[in-house]
This record gives sequence, structure tokens and C-alpha cells, in this order.
Amino acid sequence: MRATTIHAPFDMRVQDVPDAAVQHPTDAVVRVLRACICGSDLWAYRGESARKPGQRIGHEFLGLVEETGADVSGLRRGDLVVAPFMWSDGVCDYCREGLTTSCEHGGFWGSEGSDGGQGEAVRVPFADATLVRLPGDAASDDRLLSALLTLSDVLGTGHHAALGAGARPGATVAVVGDGAVGLCAVLAARRLGAERIIALGRHQGRTDIARRFGATDVVAERGEAAVEAVRELTRGQGAHAVVEAVGTEQSMRTALGVARDGGAIGFVGVPHGSGTGLDLGVMFDGNIALRGGVAPVRTYIPELLPDVLDGTIDPSPVFDRTVGLEEVPDGYRAMDERTALKVMVTP
Amino acid sequence: MRATTIHAPFDMRVQDVPDAAVQHPTDAVVRVLRACICGSDLWAYRGESARKPGQRIGHEFLGLVEETGADVSGLRRGDLVVAPFMWSDGVCDYCREGLTTSCEHGGFWGSEGSDGGQGEAVRVPFADATLVRLPGDAASDDRLLSALLTLSDVLGTGHHAALGAGARPGATVAVVGDGAVGLCAVLAARRLGAERIIALGRHQGRTDIARRFGATDVVAERGEAAVEAVRELTRGQGAHAVVEAVGTEQSMRTALGVARDGGAIGFVGVPHGSGTGLDLGVMFDGNIALRGGVAPVRTYIPELLPDVLDGTIDPSPVFDRTVGLEEVPDGYRAMDERTALKVMVTP
Repeated sequence: MRATTIHAPFDMRVQDVPDAAVQHPTDAVVRVLRACICGSDLWAYRGESARKPGQRIGHEFLGLVEETGADVSGLRRGDLVVAPFMWSDGVCDYCREGLTTSCEHGGFWGSEGSDGGQGEAVRVPFADATLVRLPGDAASDDRLLSALLTLSDVLGTGHHAALGAGARPGATVAVVGDGAVGLCAVLAARRLGAERIIALGRHQGRTDIARRFGATDVVAERGEAAVEAVRELTRGQGAHAVVEAVGTEQSMRTALGVARDGGAIGFVGVPHGSGTGLDLGVMFDGNIALRGGVAPVRTYIPELLPDVLDGTIDPSPVFDRTVGLEEVPDGYRAMDERTALKVMVTP
Repeated sequence: MRATTIHAPFDMRVQDVPDAAVQHPTDAVVRVLRACICGSDLWAYRGESARKPGQRIGHEFLGLVEETGADVSGLRRGDLVVAPFMWSDGVCDYCREGLTTSCEHGGFWGSEGSDGGQGEAVRVPFADATLVRLPGDAASDDRLLSALLTLSDVLGTGHHAALGAGARPGATVAVVGDGAVGLCAVLAARRLGAERIIALGRHQGRTDIARRFGATDVVAERGEAAVEAVRELTRGQGAHAVVEAVGTEQSMRTALGVARDGGAIGFVGVPHGSGTGLDLGVMFDGNIALRGGVAPVRTYIPELLPDVLDGTIDPSPVFDRTVGLEEVPDGYRAMDERTALKVMVTP
């Protein structure tokens, strides 16, 4: 089968690889209908996260169950399923608590020895626990399929950020980061009842989506100027809930700068850089909390799915470009150059 | 009147100062019955927090109302009252939300122009909002008076730490820091229903109090060895709720090291040092939150007071030495040398 591999920074290839196959009785093989490229894939693309030459990549996909291991009981061939961006066993302490990303037997698509989502098919460990079944007729609804694909990562991650930040009815939420996760955090914050949502971003295509997703204000400034702009919008106090969806020291500094005393930063940007961007003295004086991390999206899918299915939320506009599997390297290039917001892949 | 002043590192004096007096109609003057020395006072004592020569010091006290301004309606001469370690106006946005430490007109005892608690009397701004009345007959109960004095800071701060860490029924709590705040966090965690409380400390006098306060385990190791010991006690997972009650990079590192995935660090140690001791990558991967800061103890007093009055909790053992006002410099020396845990002052 064909799958995307990474060989060196900026060197993505689509190659012949061994067919995905059931290896353990709890595995399933999923034929990928839709996959996509994540902002966090760009860290590997740019060489800022180490990968071995030839490693698979891609951690967001949905598709049809093609084969199931002997111990898989809840799925059968032909089921339409979405995969969260990590697999999990569903039975360990952490999974039972909903923190599937800390699963004792969990793993990440594209890690060594595993398949990646940006390919024709994927072997899915602990398929019963990992995969979530979707209504089969969604497969024929192009827009809905795109919306459902966001359940694999960006929608759940945005939701995690909004929860971590403490988005709630009446709250003012600020979102640092205008990528797909930041935009989904806007959508999630509105869904959670936030009264005011301030999106930080200067790329009009993206801030237009932010407004469509529920942002009430857009701040185009950066750094200190952005902090001042948010404070002006909030009577000098800052936002109750701040989403940090970038992962750099600068973005964390901005997030802390716009946080209101007693508020929280929900951070979901994969941390990069040697420092934290945090000032513990400021957090201490203002009782500003930091909550977040890798989102246990598997746990959120059952909660978010009905709202996606009935159209209450429609995250599909985060995809602004679609490529075939052979064009995945072009998709990376476009996202790296920010000419695309998020690229969908249709193998 | 006599009051403690700080002139340089390690140079504490008890001097004649102008009598405390009502300056604003919302002021009251409180004659101090009991004050104490806080671990955080040691930062000033050691020169690690800047103070102007001659500045007052001390932020924990209880006493009798001696005089009230014209606008003070809820207090009268002779009332026994406890003061939280910051004053607050009771009406601003933050006060109404309970975050009295962020009060728009709040302040800290001993800041320039204000009286300190380690003196004969204190002018209390916004007296109606700041002070909390205590049953008058407590004044004749020495043990109870000591217990009530902890409401001014260490008990409420320990409670804040335990809340921030997420102490709750069934949880395993680890407490980093064996000072009075750490010990009060043990007491608070037990009060909040924690199932298991692991106190980190090697000073037997202190760990004995920790056990009396509800610690189920004591870890005497430090640094990496402490982390390993806590992990051994928790099936390798760490504690759901971790209290950081020191404020150094090393203590924060230890706190993070013993935190379980999905858990939280409740930090109340005043941060010192140029770094944070945090590793955002570890927090991200494990979804470990950081919550805390300067404790809004004014808000907690009404909740904690009944339990202190009826003996459900007795924090009084944190005081292991009592000095008169003129001996306050000896008290600092003893706490600095760790020959005293917490020194009470009886002016």
C-alpha cells in the first residue's frame, strides 16, 4: 500500500510500504477515507521534533473497518469509524478515568513500528477501545465527513483547551493561535457558553473563520501590543479563560499577559523551546492557573459527536485545501508556508 | 507604640513608632493579642525580598478592635477579630468573586505606609470587609486563640494549596514542604477527604505534626530520591494532588516529579529563583495542571472558622515557640535556623 513517510526535514515522501494487517487479536485494519495534516506535524516537518528516516506520519483519520482481529467484538467490516490521535486500551486506570492519552498501553500513530494516518490503511491497536463508530450514511456526505474528521484531533483538542482554560457561560475567552486548533477552541468555547470570545490573529482568512465559529472580537496585534489590546477590551482585567494553541514561549507569554486574575490558561500547543514563557511570580500574584496538555480526544468524541452530527457545531471550515495521497508533500509545503490552514487528504 | 521593623537582611528591630490610628472612615485600629512570624517573612529577613530600611513587617494577627472609623458599621470596640494577610475592600469585582488578594484597593500589611502585624496595634483599612469577628470568649482560651491565629494565613494558605492541587475524597495527596503551610495543607487535605496523604520531610518534629494532622506516609528523601519514593508508594503513578509549599525551583521540580498524570500541583510557596522548575513537556504529556498562588484567605475564613471553633481541625501545633514583642528578632533567628517551626508573638 501507499503511505506518507518522513526522511529528513522538509523531505516527505509517499512510498510503497507493507500492507496494514492485523497483528494482534485486538487489532483492526481501517481503510482510510479521509486523513489530514496537523499543525503539530509541522514540528517534525521542520526538524524540530526528531523522526527516524522513513518513519510514518499522520495521526488524524477516519475510514472503513476492513479487517478485525479475533478479539474485536464491537466493530465489523464496513463500519465507518474515526480514530483519535492516540490509541488506548480502554481498561487501564487512566483510560477508565478518561485520560486515554496516558494509557499504559497507548501510543501515537506514526511512532516507530506503527502505521500513520496519512496512508491508505492503518493497523489500529485495541480497536474496540480506540475507534468510535460513526453513522454509515455519513460516508456519502462530504461536508459531514470533513467535520467528523476533526474529531480525531483538532476539535477535541480545541475542546480540551477551552475546558482547561475554564470556558463557561458568562466568561470572556481569549484564544492565542489562529491555527485549526485555535479556531476549534473558539468553536468549543462558544459551545461551552462563553459570552465573549477574543481571537488573536492577523490572517484575515483565519479570523473570518474565527468569527464564523463564534469569536466576538479579533485582535490583530502581536506580543505586548496584543496584550494591551485584550486588556483594553476587558476593562484592563484580561480574559477569564485563555487558550494557548501554539506552543512557543512567545505565545505562552502572550497567553499569560492576557489572563485575568483568578483565570486559567488552557494550553494545548505542543511545547517547544527551552524556556516555558511562564512567569511564576505573575501566576502566583494573580492566581492564574495552567491546565491542559495532550488532549484525551477519545474521551471527548462521544460528547462532541452528536453536536457535529446534528450541525450544532460545524468545524469543517478549518479545511481549506484537499489533496490526494500522492500530493501530501505539497500539503505540508502549503501548511508550512501558511498558504493553507489545514489540508485534508483523500487517499 | 512598639512595632517590629526591618532595616537590612538579618537586622530586625523592635522600635517606637507612631501609634496606629484611624486615618480613613473605613479604618479600624486593632490592638494585637497574637501575631506570628511567617515562613515568607524569612525571604525579607534573608534579603531575598527587598524592603526599605525601617519598613514594618508581620502579616498575621488577631486582636481586639480598639477604634473604628465613622463608616465602619459591622465592628465595635472590644470585638475579637482576625485579620487575613491582606486587606481588601469587599466590593470590587475580584472581592465579589472571592479573589480578595486581587482586590483593586487591597494591600499587604507591612507594605510602605501601612502597619505590620508584629506590633502592638494595626490600622486596618476597609475594616468591615477585611476583619472577621470571632467569638469573644475565645480570647480566654489560649489553645483556641493559637488555632484561630492560623486563619490569618497558614491555614487558609494550606487550604488554598489543597484545593489547587485537587485534594478530594479518594485522592492521594503529596505535600512538598514541611513548614507551617505544608503542615496546614496536610490538615486541609484530610479535611477535604483525601484518602492518602504523603508528607515529604526529614525533620522528625515536623513529620510528627504531619502525622498528627493526617499524613498517612512520610517520605524523608529529597530530590530525585523523594520522587522515586513517592512513586513507589503509588504504584509508579504519583499523587493525584501535589502541594508545593516552598517556592524554590527544586521544590517545584520535586512537586512535578511526584504528580500523577491528570493531576495538579497546588502551589502556594512564594516563587523564588530565576527559573520556574517546571518542565512544560512533562506537564503537557501528563496533563498535569498548576493552580494556586497567593491565597485569598479572607474568603476561606468563614468556611474554616467553624471547624476550628468546634475542634474538627486544630492547627495550633504549628506554633512551637512563643516570644514577646521585644524578642521578635530572636524569633526570626530561630525560624531562619529551623530551630523553631513557627513562632507566635504575644505583644
